[in-house]
Amino acid sequence: MQDLIDEIAATLSTRTDRGAVADYIPELAKVDPDQFGIAIAMADGSLHLAGDAETPFSIQSVSKVFALALALGRVGDQLWRRVGREPSGQSFNSMLLLEREEGIPRNPFINAGALVTTDTYLAGSTPREALGHLLRFVRAAADDEAIHINQAVARSELETAHRNFALAHYLASFGNLQNGPDKVLGTYCHQCAIDMSCRQLALAGRFLIEGKGFPRLLTRERQRRINALMMTCGHYDGSGDFAFRVGLPGKSGVGGGILAIAPGRASIAVWSPGLNRYGNSSLGTEAMEILARRTGWSVFG
Amino acid sequence: MQDLIDEIAATLSTRTDRGAVADYIPELAKVDPDQFGIAIAMADGSLHLAGDAETPFSIQSVSKVFALALALGRVGDQLWRRVGREPSGQSFNSMLLLEREEGIPRNPFINAGALVTTDTYLAGSTPREALGHLLRFVRAAADDEAIHINQAVARSELETAHRNFALAHYLASFGNLQNGPDKVLGTYCHQCAIDMSCRQLALAGRFLIEGKGFPRLLTRERQRRINALMMTCGHYDGSGDFAFRVGLPGKSGVGGGILAIAPGRASIAVWSPGLNRYGNSSLGTEAMEILARRTGWSVFG
Amino acid sequence: MQDLIDEIAATLSTRTDRGAVADYIPELAKVDPDQFGIAIAMADGSLHLAGDAETPFSIQSVSKVFALALALGRVGDQLWRRVGREPSGQSFNSMLLLEREEGIPRNPFINAGALVTTDTYLAGSTPREALGHLLRFVRAAADDEAIHINQAVARSELETAHRNFALAHYLASFGNLQNGPDKVLGTYCHQCAIDMSCRQLALAGRFLIEGKGFPRLLTRERQRRINALMMTCGHYDGSGDFAFRVGLPGKSGVGGGILAIAPGRASIAVWSPGLNRYGNSSLGTEAMEILARRTGWSVFG
Amino acid sequence: MQDLIDEIAATLSTRTDRGAVADYIPELAKVDPDQFGIAIAMADGSLHLAGDAETPFSIQSVSKVFALALALGRVGDQLWRRVGREPSGQSFNSMLLLEREEGIPRNPFINAGALVTTDTYLAGSTPREALGHLLRFVRAAADDEAIHINQAVARSELETAHRNFALAHYLASFGNLQNGPDKVLGTYCHQCAIDMSCRQLALAGRFLIEGKGFPRLLTRERQRRINALMMTCGHYDGSGDFAFRVGLPGKSGVGGGILAIAPGRASIAVWSPGLNRYGNSSLGTEAMEILARRTGWSVFG
Repeated sequence: MQDLIDEIAATLSTRTDRGAVADYIPELAKVDPDQFGIAIAMADGSLHLAGDAETPFSIQSVSKVFALALALGRVGDQLWRRVGREPSGQSFNSMLLLEREEGIPRNPFINAGALVTTDTYLAGSTPREALGHLLRFVRAAADDEAIHINQAVARSELETAHRNFALAHYLASFGNLQNGPDKVLGTYCHQCAIDMSCRQLALAGRFLIEGKGFPRLLTRERQRRINALMMTCGHYDGSGDFAFRVGLPGKSGVGGGILAIAPGRASIAVWSPGLNRYGNSSLGTEAMEILARRTGWSVFG
Repeated sequence: MQDLIDEIAATLSTRTDRGAVADYIPELAKVDPDQFGIAIAMADGSLHLAGDAETPFSIQSVSKVFALALALGRVGDQLWRRVGREPSGQSFNSMLLLEREEGIPRNPFINAGALVTTDTYLAGSTPREALGHLLRFVRAAADDEAIHINQAVARSELETAHRNFALAHYLASFGNLQNGPDKVLGTYCHQCAIDMSCRQLALAGRFLIEGKGFPRLLTRERQRRINALMMTCGHYDGSGDFAFRVGLPGKSGVGGGILAIAPGRASIAVWSPGLNRYGNSSLGTEAMEILARRTGWSVFG
Repeated sequence: MQDLIDEIAATLSTRTDRGAVADYIPELAKVDPDQFGIAIAMADGSLHLAGDAETPFSIQSVSKVFALALALGRVGDQLWRRVGREPSGQSFNSMLLLEREEGIPRNPFINAGALVTTDTYLAGSTPREALGHLLRFVRAAADDEAIHINQAVARSELETAHRNFALAHYLASFGNLQNGPDKVLGTYCHQCAIDMSCRQLALAGRFLIEGKGFPRLLTRERQRRINALMMTCGHYDGSGDFAFRVGLPGKSGVGGGILAIAPGRASIAVWSPGLNRYGNSSLGTEAMEILARRTGWSVFG
Repeated sequence: MQDLIDEIAATLSTRTDRGAVADYIPELAKVDPDQFGIAIAMADGSLHLAGDAETPFSIQSVSKVFALALALGRVGDQLWRRVGREPSGQSFNSMLLLEREEGIPRNPFINAGALVTTDTYLAGSTPREALGHLLRFVRAAADDEAIHINQAVARSELETAHRNFALAHYLASFGNLQNGPDKVLGTYCHQCAIDMSCRQLALAGRFLIEGKGFPRLLTRERQRRINALMMTCGHYDGSGDFAFRVGLPGKSGVGGGILAIAPGRASIAVWSPGLNRYGNSSLGTEAMEILARRTGWSVFG
């Protein structure tokens, strides 16, 4: 395994077509695109790192997985009254279906759905308390108390979050937010601004499967269901392509990180800041594809 | 396994909320809704049947899986220039995305994409020849020469196929059909009118995984990829829900059949004519859900 | 003329199917639905009133006509770089086309377009100054210094303006707002909260045509063009119906008011709070239809 | 008037930016783009011609006006149960709204609506009989027995009519066609293939207003209503722009012809084959704009 990921890191380090770094959040636009990291937490308890696996990056939408787990822990299946479980077939910040479907977002991984998720775990608490719960969850999953929120990124994001403000107000106009849009957005932008390294993210992802020494934070059924959602909806309108090429449940973030799960086998984190046309890490997707092909970890046979 | 599916068949036989039989194809509307069959072809070579597992039914859109395999065999990855690999987020016969995406259907399992698939395996042949190839493929997969096309259903379908004619002409208007719409539609309606029992369908589905005595008609990679497409797109705008509840790649047909694949383990066919709101078999979906839960076959852990 | 509008007022006073009063703005929901007023300012300088023609009501979206004139006066045809001149075919607060057309609203009379108009006349000034300009324009048009903004309505509107906040942030996300969404929305809600009676509104509408003693605030060409926009876009997705039934340029507001222009002949204001399914005054539309039929004022022959 | 249109023809004859000739119908693609004709039939009975006013061209969608009059004569206001009266905000052959609004086209001037109109006047007759009625109507309106259908254009159109076939089958799938799609399409393509010169078209347009020696084929109310529809819907998603710039009800055809009506004053036909981005004659629109400005015929003041 270590040889394999060293080889992957070496192969990809020579690549020049890395895609463009997200530029709509000023803090993220500063990141050096020539980085690549990968970390694998195996079910046997071993951990393998290669490349820039220890460099922290902004996990952004990968945080939606942890937020979903937290929200489900809070309200259980009632969450599904307010958000769907279907791929949207649209880009991550689309308004189209939200208008047609009267404020019920298609799934918890597009932005509108993630705002409902955030609104759900916010419940009666202050943003500070709610983010505290979330951080505790992530730290417990990764067994690492050092994981924290990058305040500069959170602020930068909040200042340029017009599209997300639009979604939040839109949800509110349909009565599908319990907290005010400003409060939800403030919390959401901090949630997305969690910094983690590939090592930390791979360890944190262990809560989605069973493995030696893996934290038990969810029932088996809930693990399965979150993995299912990651498979069908985790890469926005590139989800089908990720399933086709990689064959693993995964969730991407605009910071260039991807968390993928090989059920029964491993939690995998890759990171490379350049994005493809769907807004998912270009080299990260490729690394996952090579890894899945070489290991035969695809869930599809 | 036999006990389990006997139990499932028994449990579901008492159910009265079976959904409505498809009524837009007159021949299908005649089918008795109080039927339920299930068949499982295990990787160890064993076969298990319960309920009306020997009763033939119209496989309808389940045929799209075989058609896709045939078209990929014909033109390989060139197919993906003419059809996408993403969930559409829309109903099976929607025009919306086709207009916006200028005649490139989202995936080969919605009707527009299936018409492109049919157009592809038609290539230079006559409909009779092309359907002959398809039947040979299906018969080889099932190891059963008795599988045939129900001409009455094909005719009935062709007479009421306005929506599919609209899609075919629409594709043609974008230059994404090589054969005339009438020829494609005629072939397509016959393809959908293949009659199979659950036993035959479970056996035919074996070509999507490896198992003892299973036919080798595809490479392992192509098996995986078709399974991936079945997972993300196999149940139209109910695909996310099927993945969430069942956790297996599957393809449904409006005749009430579902083919699901448990990679490395089994090919499963269920049939019950009543449909849920997505146009997928209502009891069939439920049977798959019970089966997956009881066996732990979900690919998601 | 006086006899005719007395007859119209008398006829409509007996009607019980008056549509529902807008309830999404709490202050407007309090209005007594059993009111009807009409006022006609003739090109010969005469003025005719009937029913509750002196009762002030919230002009709401009728204000978009004055705002458009003000914005055109400020930037001229440059406005058309930021907003279109086509009917949208969608409801007044739709996001659909705005997404597809990347933040350029279809016309200045749907909400998104009106926000751009407000943003335009706001320019470098404070909301208070900008609203001062607008009020001066309206007062000059109506020759009535008593016209004012209803602060309670403005506040009520601002508190429930999630949909408009969504539109404003969405425009901002495409770079099509020069002022912040909060500032634009605050100004917009005050603009909509102008109170006027039918008498005042009919007099104010005189700036759109030439007549004896009519104020000259626009060039003839600009009058024509605003009238054209009122004809094709003034009643949202009921504009075609209004043109078909009435045949006059008009602009409706959710407060139940309608301003219509009979070029060369008259400026007409009607008011009745109950709305039809397009969000336009139900009896108001009917009154306009009767008036146009009886006078032969339709511009269509 | 004669001087004015001579001047317009002279001015436009020097123009090189004439737009592109429609190329999707092979017969139309052959037309020389350097032609321009204009004809005006005045309410005082006089007729003015300039440029290529005697050259026949394919009226294409201008025929929808005559077809609408014929269909209304056949079934009256019952037509409005099957087709709307609102601008669609979409291109002339869009499927989008038709899907959302379940087979009821927005108005009789987009292609889907025109197919319903053709289906209506077809009623119980053969295509030959129905086209005979239509030709009799047009000839009576123009007082010219020489007007005929160009069979070569009709055939050329039918062979490339995939998009219209798609619309017809789509309407049929919602039950909004009474005749088969092939029959409706055959009739429709012949209807569109009527050849007329500007002189003939201006004379034929007289049935939409009153004037000296003008044929009386419709009630005054029906004239008004058809003019209203031409204003709001006659130029597809360029209708708002035409109203804004010209201010007259008009109907364009992809052959480069435009019929416009100045109520109480004149019926105007212009023709120039090059099209603008909405599919309307580029120089034709410009000629109408100059004419309207110079005569002050705009209905908007």
